[in-house]
Amino acid sequence: MAFSFTVTHNDTESRARTGLLKLPHAEVETPAFMPVGTLGVVKAVAPETIWEIGYRLILSNAYHLYLRPGHELIEDHGGLGRFMNWPGAILTDSGGFQVFSLAKLRKLNDKGVIFQSHIDGSTHLFTPELSLAVQEALGVDIIMCLDDVRAYPASKTDATDAVKRTFAWAARTVDSKKKVDPALFGIVQGSMYPDLRRLSAEGLTSLEFDGYAIGGLSVGEPHELMVEIIDATTPYLPEHKPRYLMGVGKPLDILESTIRGVDLFDCVLPTRNARNANLFTSSGRLNIRNSRYRDDHGPVDSDCGCVLCRNYSRAYLRHLFKENEILGLTLATVHNLSFYYQLMSDIRAAIRENRVNSLLKQYSSRTEEIND
Amino acid sequence: MAFSFTVTHNDTESRARTGLLKLPHAEVETPAFMPVGTLGVVKAVAPETIWEIGYRLILSNAYHLYLRPGHELIEDHGGLGRFMNWPGAILTDSGGFQVFSLAKLRKLNDKGVIFQSHIDGSTHLFTPELSLAVQEALGVDIIMCLDDVRAYPASKTDATDAVKRTFAWAARTVDSKKKVDPALFGIVQGSMYPDLRRLSAEGLTSLEFDGYAIGGLSVGEPHELMVEIIDATTPYLPEHKPRYLMGVGKPLDILESTIRGVDLFDCVLPTRNARNANLFTSSGRLNIRNSRYRDDHGPVDSDCGCVLCRNYSRAYLRHLFKENEILGLTLATVHNLSFYYQLMSDIRAAIRENRVNSLLKQYSSRTEEIND
Repeated sequence: MAFSFTVTHNDTESRARTGLLKLPHAEVETPAFMPVGTLGVVKAVAPETIWEIGYRLILSNAYHLYLRPGHELIEDHGGLGRFMNWPGAILTDSGGFQVFSLAKLRKLNDKGVIFQSHIDGSTHLFTPELSLAVQEALGVDIIMCLDDVRAYPASKTDATDAVKRTFAWAARTVDSKKKVDPALFGIVQGSMYPDLRRLSAEGLTSLEFDGYAIGGLSVGEPHELMVEIIDATTPYLPEHKPRYLMGVGKPLDILESTIRGVDLFDCVLPTRNARNANLFTSSGRLNIRNSRYRDDHGPVDSDCGCVLCRNYSRAYLRHLFKENEILGLTLATVHNLSFYYQLMSDIRAAIRENRVNSLLKQYSSRTEEIND
Repeated sequence: MAFSFTVTHNDTESRARTGLLKLPHAEVETPAFMPVGTLGVVKAVAPETIWEIGYRLILSNAYHLYLRPGHELIEDHGGLGRFMNWPGAILTDSGGFQVFSLAKLRKLNDKGVIFQSHIDGSTHLFTPELSLAVQEALGVDIIMCLDDVRAYPASKTDATDAVKRTFAWAARTVDSKKKVDPALFGIVQGSMYPDLRRLSAEGLTSLEFDGYAIGGLSVGEPHELMVEIIDATTPYLPEHKPRYLMGVGKPLDILESTIRGVDLFDCVLPTRNARNANLFTSSGRLNIRNSRYRDDHGPVDSDCGCVLCRNYSRAYLRHLFKENEILGLTLATVHNLSFYYQLMSDIRAAIRENRVNSLLKQYSSRTEEIND
């Protein structure tokens, strides 16, 4: 059996749990964060560096790789892991969200979604079967079902349609799956309607997926509403299967979601912020372009053991950013991904010791500093 | 004695020689190529990677670091090596060439050169004494004297003035030197006039520098003329001192210059070309954006052992460049610098075995492929 998930500890004070996810290419301790490698590369960082930080599972994207360079080309190279020289495991998003957020002229029907490429305007039909085939060709560890994603806010009629179609597509994906090894996850939709979330979760659970994702959040809704919807969803997902909150998020979002029983996360925040000179530190976020760091001999974060914080001063990193030197982007990304890796380690340790609520209090008290 | 240079072998068939350059921060086998780290970073590559390739001496620039972030700031950090986390040795150019090529409104007089910064238009006076002080503050291993650089072609009157002023400035630099450890190199000028080159070389030799550079070449003149001028210069430079040909160059330029007794080189070619998708290989140069590499599973150069050629296909590197992914720039730069490192190793081995002329024939026969 290439895929398994074991809950290794249940927090006594919350729904948080630690787990061990066994995938064809790696074992992953959960709760875990996945760095985003949309185009077959985590922006600005070599895969061996991602591995050295400690990550064993990254996220990539079926929509993007289907368009360029093409999934057949990557399959021909022995799969995405070989193509990008990543020895660990990969989860690919199905393309549902990208067609919704990037493509032009999206037309949904029961068969699938017709869209124009954001690159060259060419027209494509993405079906649940094609998204599955693309992901199987990529040879990834976790495949996501194509889902019907709607804008926020969505009317209840709209959201209901999306739940129904997402369920129908999920059932077709299960029926079409050819490869045994990769795990298949269904995606819960239902916008901000708790009853629709429950409906979606219960429907998908009947299909016996290897794991369940919560989609359609972090799309512009207030933090409290997001937390409310997670609260209304995880109780209807099976205890012994991994739960993945898509596209989330800030450290506090992650912490509040783990307390509600979420196991997996991905977000562009650490990597994108890094490229914008915005660094996460144990005492708050900082923008390294700020003139206050001009002559600052100290490391970005004295609590951090990453290659940036071990070897370079704030003044040097600021110099690199001021001069638009590429190395600045690389070092900042390595740092932010190290911060997130440490965050997840801290969360796992706290869960094991049944003190995740006090960790949450600690982070909540500095919301403005590191969560804005 | 922090600085020494020993000729370890003289080629029996040419003026080529191998040598060992002992510097405060590293020992360097010559002939050697110095990667260019103008702003305190070799563009797109971490210093530890430069070290892993094998380099122990890099080039940086007094003019640029004086303007930003400022030499005092770097001195305050313990010098440029500490600031940029480079454990090896550093040679800095004096700024003479950069004031000539980059600055606005350059006004030369015997005192120094008044110029406007290419960054913010602010006015500065660079004197031989200030250039020396900047380089001493940077704490580098080899300091270059400020020289008077003229455009190509230059009239004989102009070139004569430049030779005289470069000599006067060199003498003032020797007199002003405070730090004992760093080596000080004089720069031979004289444009394309063999008699002026001899005059300049003999004048500077009387000042007993630690090494001698040949400046004012690779400024647009034909290859043959450059070689002719090197031929007219090196015989007038002392045998037991290192000779540095500034800003050169293509592999064939380097080979032809070593045969004429040059020991040190620097050039932006490998790093700049890499960022433009242009890669040096043992069978010619290639542009990795070319569609012929779209599905090419092979490495960029099967004779190369660099991290790019060991781990990634041409198709993957092309994908990175097509998507403007930063990692592509980094990997291509590492490759081209590995190619240059290997080139210099091959040259040193050929000199030791008195077969550098046959190595030259080999490279000349593929001029169009890798030297264009």
